[in-house]
Amino acid sequence: MTLLVVGSIALDSVETPFGNRPDILGGAASYFSVGASLFTPVRLAGVIGEDFPTEHLELFRSRRIDLEGLRTISGGKTFRWAGRYVGRMDIAETLDTQLNVLGDVRPQLPASYLDSEFVLLANDHPANQLAVAQQLSQPRFMMMDTMNLWIDNFRSEVVKVLGVVDALVCNDEEARSLGENSNLIGAMNAISAMGPSTVLVKKGEHGAIILHAGRFFALPAYPLEYVKDPTGAGDTFAAGVMGFLARERTCDFQSLKMAMSYGTVLASYNVEDFGLDRLRTLTMNDIEIRHEVYRQFLALDG
Amino acid sequence: MTLLVVGSIALDSVETPFGNRPDILGGAASYFSVGASLFTPVRLAGVIGEDFPTEHLELFRSRRIDLEGLRTISGGKTFRWAGRYVGRMDIAETLDTQLNVLGDVRPQLPASYLDSEFVLLANDHPANQLAVAQQLSQPRFMMMDTMNLWIDNFRSEVVKVLGVVDALVCNDEEARSLGENSNLIGAMNAISAMGPSTVLVKKGEHGAIILHAGRFFALPAYPLEYVKDPTGAGDTFAAGVMGFLARERTCDFQSLKMAMSYGTVLASYNVEDFGLDRLRTLTMNDIEIRHEVYRQFLALDG
Repeated sequence: MTLLVVGSIALDSVETPFGNRPDILGGAASYFSVGASLFTPVRLAGVIGEDFPTEHLELFRSRRIDLEGLRTISGGKTFRWAGRYVGRMDIAETLDTQLNVLGDVRPQLPASYLDSEFVLLANDHPANQLAVAQQLSQPRFMMMDTMNLWIDNFRSEVVKVLGVVDALVCNDEEARSLGENSNLIGAMNAISAMGPSTVLVKKGEHGAIILHAGRFFALPAYPLEYVKDPTGAGDTFAAGVMGFLARERTCDFQSLKMAMSYGTVLASYNVEDFGLDRLRTLTMNDIEIRHEVYRQFLALDG
Repeated sequence: MTLLVVGSIALDSVETPFGNRPDILGGAASYFSVGASLFTPVRLAGVIGEDFPTEHLELFRSRRIDLEGLRTISGGKTFRWAGRYVGRMDIAETLDTQLNVLGDVRPQLPASYLDSEFVLLANDHPANQLAVAQQLSQPRFMMMDTMNLWIDNFRSEVVKVLGVVDALVCNDEEARSLGENSNLIGAMNAISAMGPSTVLVKKGEHGAIILHAGRFFALPAYPLEYVKDPTGAGDTFAAGVMGFLARERTCDFQSLKMAMSYGTVLASYNVEDFGLDRLRTLTMNDIEIRHEVYRQFLALDG
C-alpha cells in the first residue's frame, strides 16, 4: 500500500569523528522515503530549490518514489543544515541552519496524493502538519513527528495535531517535554491522553518504546560498535516502522511491534555510513538477514 | 547454592520528589543480600558500627542471611550516606558521605565462607576486592561491581581484579570510562578483553545489556510510571541476577539472560518504595507474577 511522507529535503554538511561530508543529501523526508521505499511504494511531498542536484532526484527515481508532490521553487535555494557529532555522538550540535525554501513555502499535496492511507507527517510547524492532515480524504494510519522548538513555542498547535493523528513518533526528551512528566512512562501516558492511540519514542542507542491502546512494548537498539553518522537514524527508524505497516496494511499492536523491529534494523544500517550512503545500496534481503540476527539477539529463551 | 556478597552496609538519608527518609537501612550489601535471599541462601560479609540498629539485623535474620561475616566494630560508627534525587531521578546527588568503619576496617571472610562458589564483590576499593577474591578456595562465578572513583584513580588495580573475576557489573558511564570508548558496545568488548567473560551493564530506565563470550543480549527496563526511590536499583538488579544463577547453579549464556530478566523484575519492585521497604514484604510469588507480565511485555511475537 502506498505510503506518503511530507517533510524536509535538505543539503547537509556533517562532521563526525569518522570524517566530514559537505553538501550531501539530507532531510527527514529524504531518509524516510529512500528507507521506506525498500518496503512499499512511497509518495514524497516537499520543497527544494533550483540548486538541488539532479543526482539526488535520480536516487529518488531509482527507488520509484512518486515525486509529484516534490515542488522545485523557482529562484529558491534548498534547505541547508550543518551539524557535528562528538564523543558519544548521541546529540547533534547544529552549526548552521538555512531554512531557504522551507521557510517560505507551505506544503501542498497534489490531487493524486489525497487518498493516501499510511502517512508520515515529518517534523514541521504544527500548523503545516495540521493543514496536510486535513487535506487527506481517507487516512488510515497517520503518524506525526515533532521537536522541542514546536513543543516549547506552539504547544497548543502541536496538541491540535495530536488530536487528528493516530500516532506520535519523537525522541525521549521531546516526549518528557510534551507529556510534562520527567518519567517517560508517565509522559507517554499523558501524550496518549491527548489523542493518539500510539506513542512511539526513539531513544537512540537505548532503543525504542511504544504505547498502543494502553499497552507498552520496548526494544533495545541493534548493538553496533561503529556508528559513522547518526544523522537520519530516527527518520529511517520511522521509515522501517511505517514501511512495514503500509506493506502489511495493518496497524494493530502485534504489527506495530514487528514494525519497530524492522525500523530498528533499517536505522542500524543507516548509521553505518555517512548520509544516505548505506541506504543507496541496501536491499530488502540485507534487512531480512540482519532482522534474523536481531531476533536472535532479542531472544530471552534460547 | 550459597551466594556470598561482600560489600557496604549503610545508614542512608534519602530525599526524592516523593518524600524524605532519614537514617534508613542502605548499602549495596544490604540491598543485595535481602533481595538475593528470596532466591537462594546468602552469606553476608561487611562491617557495621555499634550504632547499627538491631531491627536491621532482625531483617537480615528473618531472611536467614548468614551473618558470620558481619563484623561489628567496637566504638565504631556505621557508614552513612545522604543523597537526593530530582527530576528524572536517574542520578543521585550525594549530600554527605561518612565512611566511618568502612574507611578503617578491611573485609575479612570467616573460614565458613571460603568455599563460596557464587560471589558478588560489591563496589569497594579494588585492593579490597582482590584480597577477598584471593581468599576463596573454589569460586565458580565471581562478579565485581565498581565505580568511577576507582576507575579514575586506581585503574591498574581495577584491571587486576578484572583479571580474576568472571564478570563485571557496572553502569554505562562506568563501562565507557573503564573501556575507554564512548561507544558502549566497543567499551564492553574492551572490558571483556581485560579478562571477564561476562560484562553486564546497567542502564537504569533504559534496561541492561550483557556481553558473554562474544555474544550480546539486551533487555529494556520494566515500565514503571512511579519510581519513589531509585536507591539500590543496581544492587537489587545484581541480586536477582546472582540469586537466580546461584539457585540454578549455572552461569551459561542462556541462564545469564534469564537471570537478567529476574534482576530487572527485582529492581522494579525495589524502586517502588523507599529503601528496602518493598523488599521487606516481597515474596518469590510476587516476583514470578511480575516476571510473567514482563515476559509478555518483551514478546516480539504475540
